[in-house]
Amino acid sequence: MTVESLPKHYLVRTQVEDLLADLSEGDAVPAERELAARYGVSRETVRQALQELLVAGRVERRGRGTVVARPKLVQPLSLGSYTEGTLSQGRVPGRFLVRWEEIDAHAKLAEILEIGLGDMVIHLERVLLADGERIGLESTYLPRRRFPDLAETFDPGTSLYAWIRARGVAFTTATERIETALPTPREAALVESSTAMPMIKLHRVSRDADGVPIERVRSLYRGDRMAFVTELR
Amino acid sequence: MTVESLPKHYLVRTQVEDLLADLSEGDAVPAERELAARYGVSRETVRQALQELLVAGRVERRGRGTVVARPKLVQPLSLGSYTEGTLSQGRVPGRFLVRWEEIDAHAKLAEILEIGLGDMVIHLERVLLADGERIGLESTYLPRRRFPDLAETFDPGTSLYAWIRARGVAFTTATERIETALPTPREAALVESSTAMPMIKLHRVSRDADGVPIERVRSLYRGDRMAFVTELR
Repeated sequence: MTVESLPKHYLVRTQVEDLLADLSEGDAVPAERELAARYGVSRETVRQALQELLVAGRVERRGRGTVVARPKLVQPLSLGSYTEGTLSQGRVPGRFLVRWEEIDAHAKLAEILEIGLGDMVIHLERVLLADGERIGLESTYLPRRRFPDLAETFDPGTSLYAWIRARGVAFTTATERIETALPTPREAALVESSTAMPMIKLHRVSRDADGVPIERVRSLYRGDRMAFVTELR
Repeated sequence: MTVESLPKHYLVRTQVEDLLADLSEGDAVPAERELAARYGVSRETVRQALQELLVAGRVERRGRGTVVARPKLVQPLSLGSYTEGTLSQGRVPGRFLVRWEEIDAHAKLAEILEIGLGDMVIHLERVLLADGERIGLESTYLPRRRFPDLAETFDPGTSLYAWIRARGVAFTTATERIETALPTPREAALVESSTAMPMIKLHRVSRDADGVPIERVRSLYRGDRMAFVTELR
């Protein structure tokens, strides 16, 4: 592929990237109109280039303008909680509840949690925050029999892992599946993103020291705001 | 958000998903026209729903039609090679070279590989295949001083890890960063996908038993065809 055959918006994107390298976090990116004039392209072309930089987490919208984004939040893939991972990055973690329900375990969920078909499962859905910014959505499924006092004693604005550990349950192993996904309209609205924004989707099953499943978690993180790291041995 | 406020294409998507559950891998999905008539929506709405299912890896294009996709290739995040990971899933791995160059290490690359600024680095870019399907693109950077006979003795259609191990170098640890990205036009063309398809982007630095960096790798995997798993302890 020659340079000539590259779409215009891609060339504009690389030029804007050079420009971003000289700016600091939070600095305003020149307006679409100005960039279009500078590079001799249409505003539509500039808009597409900025959209790609938005997806890459390089810029973000602020009010009516576009600013240089802060770096992605980098979390370790670990048995630790979201709270600990975020704190370790010097960010303030937060979360708020958007759904709390008790459901009958369907076949797949019963198999994963190693409980009976139709056993009660607590489903907790929370929006995850870092420094007040919505960066993910987490759905946790817990067998109610094991945690009968969850509804009475757990504050969903705090760390669930801390609450579970305080009950003497140790998170010993977990299997995590990592993939990309586009959010549904509801999910996009909850994390203040769009259905065109690639997300990192994680599925986790955590087990205690006896190998018994503690929880099943499905998390969706904004691809423009989050990255994960892992140490392989 | 009530069902009434959900975009039509999302409702169509969930209906088509129910329909897919009754079909087998490779089966034809009914034509757009037929689905539009069945659900009483426009062809544009059906097209958008199918596009979302394409991104999710549930369906794939075959010729002029759409068929039920095979499941994603699930690779362990491990120190093993792509070859081993793919074989372990019962798929036939393959790769072909798209770029081989020798470059001077710029500041960041020199720091990562722990070599001198301007030292020669071999850059190998290969398209990764599973059962003949293009599923990823891998860029490997190796210090030339350590592997001076690479160009003469390594066949880029084979496993690089096997070649390196045969030289007595052990892959002992690695740091891997995982995020999402949209591909550039060139990258999209090389993996026969589109610039709107979310990709899984991995950055790896592998080290030998002495902690010396062996390679830096940047991989881009098609989000509709790949997922990763890891066991946490």
